[in-house]
Amino acid sequence: MAQEFQHIGLVGKSGDQRVSRVLLQLAELLKSRGLRTSLDARIGETMDGWPHEVGSLSRLSREADLIIVVGGDGTLLNTARQLADHPVPLAGINLGRLGFLTDIAAEQASDGVASILDGQFQRDERRMLDARIMDGDQVVSQDLALNDVVVQKADGGRMIEFEAWVDDSFVSLHRADGMIAATATGSTAYALSGGGPILHPDVDSLALVPICPHTLSDRPLVLPGQCRIRFILRGSPDGIAQVNWDGQQTATLKAGQTLEITRSERITTLLHPPGYDYFALLRSKLQWGRAQNGTVPR
Amino acid sequence: MAQEFQHIGLVGKSGDQRVSRVLLQLAELLKSRGLRTSLDARIGETMDGWPHEVGSLSRLSREADLIIVVGGDGTLLNTARQLADHPVPLAGINLGRLGFLTDIAAEQASDGVASILDGQFQRDERRMLDARIMDGDQVVSQDLALNDVVVQKADGGRMIEFEAWVDDSFVSLHRADGMIAATATGSTAYALSGGGPILHPDVDSLALVPICPHTLSDRPLVLPGQCRIRFILRGSPDGIAQVNWDGQQTATLKAGQTLEITRSERITTLLHPPGYDYFALLRSKLQWGRAQNGTVPR
Amino acid sequence: MAQEFQHIGLVGKSGDQRVSRVLLQLAELLKSRGLRTSLDARIGETMDGWPHEVGSLSRLSREADLIIVVGGDGTLLNTARQLADHPVPLAGINLGRLGFLTDIAAEQASDGVASILDGQFQRDERRMLDARIMDGDQVVSQDLALNDVVVQKADGGRMIEFEAWVDDSFVSLHRADGMIAATATGSTAYALSGGGPILHPDVDSLALVPICPHTLSDRPLVLPGQCRIRFILRGSPDGIAQVNWDGQQTATLKAGQTLEITRSERITTLLHPPGYDYFALLRSKLQWGRAQNGTVPR
Amino acid sequence: MAQEFQHIGLVGKSGDQRVSRVLLQLAELLKSRGLRTSLDARIGETMDGWPHEVGSLSRLSREADLIIVVGGDGTLLNTARQLADHPVPLAGINLGRLGFLTDIAAEQASDGVASILDGQFQRDERRMLDARIMDGDQVVSQDLALNDVVVQKADGGRMIEFEAWVDDSFVSLHRADGMIAATATGSTAYALSGGGPILHPDVDSLALVPICPHTLSDRPLVLPGQCRIRFILRGSPDGIAQVNWDGQQTATLKAGQTLEITRSERITTLLHPPGYDYFALLRSKLQWGRAQNGTVPR
Repeated sequence: MAQEFQHIGLVGKSGDQRVSRVLLQLAELLKSRGLRTSLDARIGETMDGWPHEVGSLSRLSREADLIIVVGGDGTLLNTARQLADHPVPLAGINLGRLGFLTDIAAEQASDGVASILDGQFQRDERRMLDARIMDGDQVVSQDLALNDVVVQKADGGRMIEFEAWVDDSFVSLHRADGMIAATATGSTAYALSGGGPILHPDVDSLALVPICPHTLSDRPLVLPGQCRIRFILRGSPDGIAQVNWDGQQTATLKAGQTLEITRSERITTLLHPPGYDYFALLRSKLQWGRAQNGTVPR
Repeated sequence: MAQEFQHIGLVGKSGDQRVSRVLLQLAELLKSRGLRTSLDARIGETMDGWPHEVGSLSRLSREADLIIVVGGDGTLLNTARQLADHPVPLAGINLGRLGFLTDIAAEQASDGVASILDGQFQRDERRMLDARIMDGDQVVSQDLALNDVVVQKADGGRMIEFEAWVDDSFVSLHRADGMIAATATGSTAYALSGGGPILHPDVDSLALVPICPHTLSDRPLVLPGQCRIRFILRGSPDGIAQVNWDGQQTATLKAGQTLEITRSERITTLLHPPGYDYFALLRSKLQWGRAQNGTVPR
Repeated sequence: MAQEFQHIGLVGKSGDQRVSRVLLQLAELLKSRGLRTSLDARIGETMDGWPHEVGSLSRLSREADLIIVVGGDGTLLNTARQLADHPVPLAGINLGRLGFLTDIAAEQASDGVASILDGQFQRDERRMLDARIMDGDQVVSQDLALNDVVVQKADGGRMIEFEAWVDDSFVSLHRADGMIAATATGSTAYALSGGGPILHPDVDSLALVPICPHTLSDRPLVLPGQCRIRFILRGSPDGIAQVNWDGQQTATLKAGQTLEITRSERITTLLHPPGYDYFALLRSKLQWGRAQNGTVPR
Repeated sequence: MAQEFQHIGLVGKSGDQRVSRVLLQLAELLKSRGLRTSLDARIGETMDGWPHEVGSLSRLSREADLIIVVGGDGTLLNTARQLADHPVPLAGINLGRLGFLTDIAAEQASDGVASILDGQFQRDERRMLDARIMDGDQVVSQDLALNDVVVQKADGGRMIEFEAWVDDSFVSLHRADGMIAATATGSTAYALSGGGPILHPDVDSLALVPICPHTLSDRPLVLPGQCRIRFILRGSPDGIAQVNWDGQQTATLKAGQTLEITRSERITTLLHPPGYDYFALLRSKLQWGRAQNGTVPR
């Protein structure tokens, strides 16, 4: 079991001293265990005297057995999307407060990674979304998302009008600032700000969360994970809307084009050190059940 | 196929002239088809000159192949809960505007029922919840629910304090007016008023929707359908809370006792005449996508 | 200025050791300043060796120049309502974390009170509501409220139906669990849990906040402070609803009766030691603007 | 009284046949009464054979005693903002369903206008907001708004970070898609979609409504009408945010710059024909209290 991971990839947000410190600390640990270690070239270029290999993320994704991400949830989302065809498991180390995805605190970085290398971890598989902009039969743009795919007004001023379809059923003509299609993973991110529900990671569903909908009864809708969702842009100030994958990739949706979203075959595997507890993370992040904090007096 | 239903049970809300008229009209139809027909005794006692059998709901549930409910969603919920051990399919006729469960309009009663008798229908299976009040190992009270199980303040004045657990994980200590545990079926009923999401009927999940929670980040939570939910009452003004099944059955939960909720093995089967469309029903009930109605100008 | 307060009343929540300790500490301070001091008889009876006078709250309200409340917001609300005809200023000491009304921390009790006695304070006047249950022209029940007046279902199970009127204009027929009429002071209490807005204390308005409304577009409504609000009960499971004043006083509203709410002439005056800042209190109580806490990652 | 209005200005949305028809119909009515009538040049250019004067909106605003707007709420908002220094009263005729501002139905256009000319009307004064983008002491951009001033992300992808100040008090550091500052008039427009409360027109307050806030307790805040609100942009993806006046005018807010909002001295005066009822309009627009429509079954 302990030999499960022979080649460890390291990814980090560049331009942050703390990231470099954690990476060097992990390099030491991995060296002492005699494990092959490769650092993502994007940060590797900025780190003098790195004692291990440096390689492109694409090479890491093909060759490593485990990728450790040092940064925040954003860095992990970005990495997960780029691993596309090589579902290497990921472990996330957070430099600030814990993230939903990067749940190992920087101070516990070495201990957490050591546990995982020793085979002490919890495997957590998260489905991704596959979203394509279609113009008739043509795929105009396509990417994966771990958190969410959003269609929204391209320009700040005005709402957009679009049809929503689920499989072959018409749902509604929405007029809103936009719509968030979130996985369970993404339900605690942007979708929560938009008024969506929290979906437990074991819930195999998608949440559609309208952003500032014109119709007050246009409420969040939870759909079976295997359904195909389509949004057809009907109107907007300039005849366009914007599509975002995990708030990181962007493309333009033109009037008449369709944004088609299905569950991807791709799964992102997160490894958590012992002691990981989803509800404890929720309580901590959302300040639940603390009589002395974040509550309304009455 | 057309012979699938040989014995038809009829249930209706008593004390409403329109119900009687629809029942008599259906009696005629069923007679013309030579089908055995039994009327629920509770309404049967008030209808003079009923041309068919009259029997207890309990007998109907054992002997009928199909039960037609004339009234509203409340009448259907009540019937579904009482069928417990005999999952006879139900078809619902609504006297006012369409209901989510009683989706045949009174004016289409004969046509809709005729279609179903001809084997033209859509079968729609809905899971029920089984909720038990436990005092240690003792079951104090138990019932099924098709829509929702609610724990709430017994007295209007003050909030209650309770722990929520999912399987063996602690979720949170909630302080609120109460909590709604809703099925997908119930997600468009009380839970929606409480700010919960709409769960598509094919979503095998439960929604926990807090009622007026003290902590503003205490948001609706969607859980896998097979999990076991427990609410343990910790505090309330008089040391008690109230538990409701489908807003119809009521019991008292005492401090220290546990309300335990699991998915029931029981399924309520609804039969819809051709043309049934879940999203069309949502659009109609929630006034979606109608530019000229229910919208906010901006 | 320093002589403004010659006779100090003390009120405390009984049955709490910490309250007694703070009261004795304040007794010492007031003695050293040679000020006449009276303790509310309800707690006075439980404190042996109290070195000052003891008197009924009613006598304190007639004779004292300043009343110091030791407990929480609930204790202060209760005291404010009972002072009715004698608007003695109040200062509130909180034993747990700060309250919206009791904004002096127990550890700063002596310093805070000393500042106020020295004339160093901020005067903060809060309007009260006057709410009457009317049966035709008859007043059935009447009380004041500093936070809110609530009409709600008396029994946990079912919603109530009532008309709302503002002055002589019909607002709507509401079907809901209830309705909260909150002052600016109460807007951060129960009304906030119900989805209402925060009203700054200088906003001379009332907020009507529906509780779990049947109609999704039944949203919080902010009305001019001087208007007269009436709720007429039209229907409920048992023909009754419950009325609550500040969540502390309770009366029954029967079908056909009217709950009439107007701004009271009565004002509750709160005295805050130097450094009081409404928005700082909001930030602290609601955990605003803290990147590291209570936020949604995205 | 009937002579109050001697010179009538007409404004209409161009490119809509129905607008032209209503304008011609009103032209006839005004001619028969011998009243001087001027048509806004922007639409005047597209209408052949117009039997009256044509002039710029700026001239109309200086010379007319009453301006009749034919279109929707958007057309009226646009007109109100451009009248800036000449507060001519406005009456609004709506071609679709009634608007909150354009409350005369097209079918009642002649009757409604005739009533107003006869002095039969209700005068309704609405405060405007004055919003300025400041770079230090320099005014970079400035305009009025009748509904709302919005600061929001300029690009669809990411949230912005900004401080909010009220007079000289720091409110909070917000991280959100944006913030809406709405008048009572605007509270039923975009702010309502964002989760804000409805402010009665007689409430002299502003509502700050955060759009998709990162912190779940970042709730709508109602402030006294006379306060000065400042938003200072602290961070955003490209160092900019967008400012919108009534969703129609747009400017860029750069990091470090301040958007300053105060109540304008300018008032927009709306004239309503007899029978105008604010709550009736709310009930109609928001589908309140209709048992058979827009409600949640339970």
